[in-house]
Amino acid sequence: MVLVCLLLVFPFSWFLLVGSFGYPTSSPLGTAPRVSVARRVTLLTCLPYTTKVSRNANIAKLQAGYLFPEIARRRAALLLKHPDAKIISLGIGDTTEPIPEVITNAIAERARALSTVDGYSGYGAEQGEKKLRAAIAATYYQDLGIDETDIFVSDGAKCDISRLQAYVDSSVIMGQTDLYQQDVQKCGNIEYMRCSPENGFFPDLSKVPRTDIIFFCSPNNPTGAAASRDQLTQLVKFAKDNGSIIVYDSAYAMYISDDSPKSILEIPGAKEVALETASFSKYAGFTGVRLGWTVVPKELLFSDGHPVAKDFNRIVCTSFNGASTISQAGGLGCLSPEGLKAMQDVVGFYKENTKIIVDTFESLGFNVYGAKNAPYVWVHFPGGNSWDVFAEILEKANVVTTPGSGFGPGGEGFVRVSAFGHRENIIEAARRLKQLYK
Amino acid sequence: MVLVCLLLVFPFSWFLLVGSFGYPTSSPLGTAPRVSVARRVTLLTCLPYTTKVSRNANIAKLQAGYLFPEIARRRAALLLKHPDAKIISLGIGDTTEPIPEVITNAIAERARALSTVDGYSGYGAEQGEKKLRAAIAATYYQDLGIDETDIFVSDGAKCDISRLQAYVDSSVIMGQTDLYQQDVQKCGNIEYMRCSPENGFFPDLSKVPRTDIIFFCSPNNPTGAAASRDQLTQLVKFAKDNGSIIVYDSAYAMYISDDSPKSILEIPGAKEVALETASFSKYAGFTGVRLGWTVVPKELLFSDGHPVAKDFNRIVCTSFNGASTISQAGGLGCLSPEGLKAMQDVVGFYKENTKIIVDTFESLGFNVYGAKNAPYVWVHFPGGNSWDVFAEILEKANVVTTPGSGFGPGGEGFVRVSAFGHRENIIEAARRLKQLYK
Repeated sequence: MVLVCLLLVFPFSWFLLVGSFGYPTSSPLGTAPRVSVARRVTLLTCLPYTTKVSRNANIAKLQAGYLFPEIARRRAALLLKHPDAKIISLGIGDTTEPIPEVITNAIAERARALSTVDGYSGYGAEQGEKKLRAAIAATYYQDLGIDETDIFVSDGAKCDISRLQAYVDSSVIMGQTDLYQQDVQKCGNIEYMRCSPENGFFPDLSKVPRTDIIFFCSPNNPTGAAASRDQLTQLVKFAKDNGSIIVYDSAYAMYISDDSPKSILEIPGAKEVALETASFSKYAGFTGVRLGWTVVPKELLFSDGHPVAKDFNRIVCTSFNGASTISQAGGLGCLSPEGLKAMQDVVGFYKENTKIIVDTFESLGFNVYGAKNAPYVWVHFPGGNSWDVFAEILEKANVVTTPGSGFGPGGEGFVRVSAFGHRENIIEAARRLKQLYK
Repeated sequence: MVLVCLLLVFPFSWFLLVGSFGYPTSSPLGTAPRVSVARRVTLLTCLPYTTKVSRNANIAKLQAGYLFPEIARRRAALLLKHPDAKIISLGIGDTTEPIPEVITNAIAERARALSTVDGYSGYGAEQGEKKLRAAIAATYYQDLGIDETDIFVSDGAKCDISRLQAYVDSSVIMGQTDLYQQDVQKCGNIEYMRCSPENGFFPDLSKVPRTDIIFFCSPNNPTGAAASRDQLTQLVKFAKDNGSIIVYDSAYAMYISDDSPKSILEIPGAKEVALETASFSKYAGFTGVRLGWTVVPKELLFSDGHPVAKDFNRIVCTSFNGASTISQAGGLGCLSPEGLKAMQDVVGFYKENTKIIVDTFESLGFNVYGAKNAPYVWVHFPGGNSWDVFAEILEKANVVTTPGSGFGPGGEGFVRVSAFGHRENIIEAARRLKQLYK
């Protein structure tokens, strides 16, 4: 940081800066007296200029250690010690396989069309292209009473969830939660629904207090568990009894291979209590291309009868200008008959990886969960500390996993192993794990 | 909307709904008494289910009529009356010319690479690709002490400004402003800096009260006026004296043809009081492709000394997953030597349009402003009502403009004419305007 000497640069607007420069709770500039010209020579230290704008105190409430940066730090530390280590990453769930050509052809074709007079288009609709919205509704929500006007195309589920939080949610940044409480490992005003093998990875709803918003993802990340039709019916009834809104994250729905619902909107009555976010990221390798969608049924109403979709539309139009039109062309490629087949192949490939990981751990006597309906294997190390297990696997097998406790207190004793990886890396990781735990 | 009869669907959790269904200020569900099973038959009307989640009251504060939807409505009304009208749109500032091939080739090439094992990449950095950040710093901020780490690549300036508002700004949605006051035509807690021919389209800073945040765009949209070096030096000094943060929107900087600064960061000391948003939209026709950036200098500090960039980085990482990597490939194409030349040609084309529009109005005796440094012509109709002038031009010349008062009370008596359009449309619009006002 460049330290600017206020004395020299701003002779007519400087202040006597008192105290050491740190992060005081009140601004030194705000309370310091103006000093006369004659006393200028007393300012011997050059201190950086600060504005008088207070920092949003809520940001300071955020926990410093976001999980994946910490994992990246530990991985880097290992590489510093052992520069030749061939580290295999089965940590963060990032896709590794090429995007099928039928999809990238659609992107390239749109890009080229943008260089022609007839093919050029400027601003797209904030809600996404009509054709793509219709294709999403027809492909994923047929016979569920969802039409294109219920679909909001986004640049990914993460971004849409943050737009939802901008107005509908009690989020930390907006100052609507209390501080993180170390003893119970949670923020005030946020209830956590513990999901573990004991409850079949589905919360005991009789013990959950009423909240306005229920965040629920299925298949669950990190446990990989998909909620059954019975469980989702319970959840919808619970929301209805309480007048809550369910924000349902179905980003891995295409990985579901048993008869669990792929969308919460399959449950009768869900349209009145749930909205759903989804994404092409894990179906077509679009983690970098950025394309997803949110379904906000017209039937979902605030307590005063105002449709949630109407306000969400306003937020989307105010804070977003639509997903990139070239990404949307890719989305249309995904939903063509060849694209759908190609996405099934991509999903199938990662599911084969999942099976290799499951077989490895089971052959070593571990209990594993998830995996059947998701590209994540949730491995139990009874009595173990997640970060210790993570460190052991990283240091001895040079395989990056994710410590379960990083996702919340309910994950202690587990690690999550991601099935996203090249086949040879998955096989090599399996070999090393067998070596480590034989 | 589907009306669901609560009686049938939820026998164990229903309420007697009283009163008519409208938008009452408190929820009928929240206060209605539970009724016994025996009285179920008294529920004769099927009313829609509402959740118990209150609508964010701040959303209701938003003014209903966003300018461009209203213009679209009036245009549609004209077409309904005169289906054969050949309407030319010089209203909303949307690009019309094809993207240069050197840029779309870069996009198509990246798309195709994503279908190869070596060329595939998953999640990108939230802040953007290192190479693009470096190219932006080198192209637009050379010798200004800005490096790649100060650059945050975004999916457009609008989106970044809304991310800024999520924590640094007093915005309406977050409930940090008072209601819109019809008499003074502004929201409480927001001060408007009136820019008109009388003050050279630059506010009299001696009459502006202190605020935390100063939004300033140059060239100004809608007036098309660019602030001179002297004016920006005054603005930076004003911010420094007040400890304010300037949010500077330089989305049209490449249109500046006199020696006005293209970036506020050219002004000495600006890095301590300003951040800047920018965009490829109007240089390369990226309105649909979505790519922009924000510069947050390390020297910009909150009152407690905490760097604004550090918190902004946290917001970006929390609520955004990076601009589409294929759009970023396009950005790299833009900043190649051939891309820069091609963008200059695009900008030059629209500037020729601007000259045609200026010449037209001046030949008719109108005073026009802006235009020299921006693709917008700000035409004065002394004593006229902006919406009346808009309606006259729409109905008699079938040309869509933008009523100046739609941008704020200072715009009354003006219309904005956008220079984005195919050449033949600009020439035809000029012909019709000459006919109308001859």
